[in-house]
Amino acid sequence: MSDVKEFHLRAIGTIHTPFEQQAGTPIQPFRGKGKDTRAIIEIMPEYREGLKDLDGFERIWLLFGFHKSSGYNLNVTPYLDTAERGLFATRAPRRPNPVGLSCTKLLSVDMDAGRLEVQGVDMLDGTPLFDIKPYIPRSDAFPDSRFGWLEIVDKTDEHADDRFSR
Amino acid sequence: MSDVKEFHLRAIGTIHTPFEQQAGTPIQPFRGKGKDTRAIIEIMPEYREGLKDLDGFERIWLLFGFHKSSGYNLNVTPYLDTAERGLFATRAPRRPNPVGLSCTKLLSVDMDAGRLEVQGVDMLDGTPLFDIKPYIPRSDAFPDSRFGWLEIVDKTDEHADDRFSR
Repeated sequence: MSDVKEFHLRAIGTIHTPFEQQAGTPIQPFRGKGKDTRAIIEIMPEYREGLKDLDGFERIWLLFGFHKSSGYNLNVTPYLDTAERGLFATRAPRRPNPVGLSCTKLLSVDMDAGRLEVQGVDMLDGTPLFDIKPYIPRSDAFPDSRFGWLEIVDKTDEHADDRFSR
Repeated sequence: MSDVKEFHLRAIGTIHTPFEQQAGTPIQPFRGKGKDTRAIIEIMPEYREGLKDLDGFERIWLLFGFHKSSGYNLNVTPYLDTAERGLFATRAPRRPNPVGLSCTKLLSVDMDAGRLEVQGVDMLDGTPLFDIKPYIPRSDAFPDSRFGWLEIVDKTDEHADDRFSR
């Protein structure tokens, strides 16, 4: 078998969300608009058989295309931050390979209809889906990992939230 | 801006590992050969500037190409299992879009040389890297998530390990 040099991705389905427009820099699904948002994922008929056994997983990874993004800068000023950060230290959508990654809660699977319901999304309506992978805590969950510049931003943000609620 | 319909991925770097050959179905990095394995990632010169601030993160996501895989089956018998599972409920490399996802420990970043050292990999030597994303516990770490058919396999495997060590 020879090495594959060209990677051409084609959608296996479409993600339907309530978000029609990109408002500023997207936020991670854990905060703001995406946290509880439900979405319907429609899987194309030819891939539906591969959904078997997925319903045993509480969470799944979605690999999707940032289909409204084009181009990129290697330095970006992320949402909730004032400093420029290296692109690969952010989850900004404008990337050399504009593939997004989100861990969502899996609510239901209808294999025959090719229909998944998920919770916790922040992608735009009509987003092309490239892959689904099961969330496996042993390989994916590292709750105590240091998270760089976001630790400072997080504190700032929490402080700001407190002020607004007073 | 019009929707991007075609997603053509090009490598931003190469992952150098000690693994020359695919031996059976690859295992997740959390167990077996990949757990402590170190790898060097070489980032191409034109992308190195985007590595700034990455060193503050303890872990990173690697999105890479399964460059030795071709074709796929929607039903697969995963490593350590005897039953067929739906492809999307596995992390098998032969997928409609053969993009792999691994969370690795980031040991060092040399931005000028475009060189990262990471720990905990199971991909083959020469694997093309498509993206790096920071690991953010709040959006990525869900240690108590149910993990379907793998929960049963895990127990079986632990039992087997005990027997071998006696």
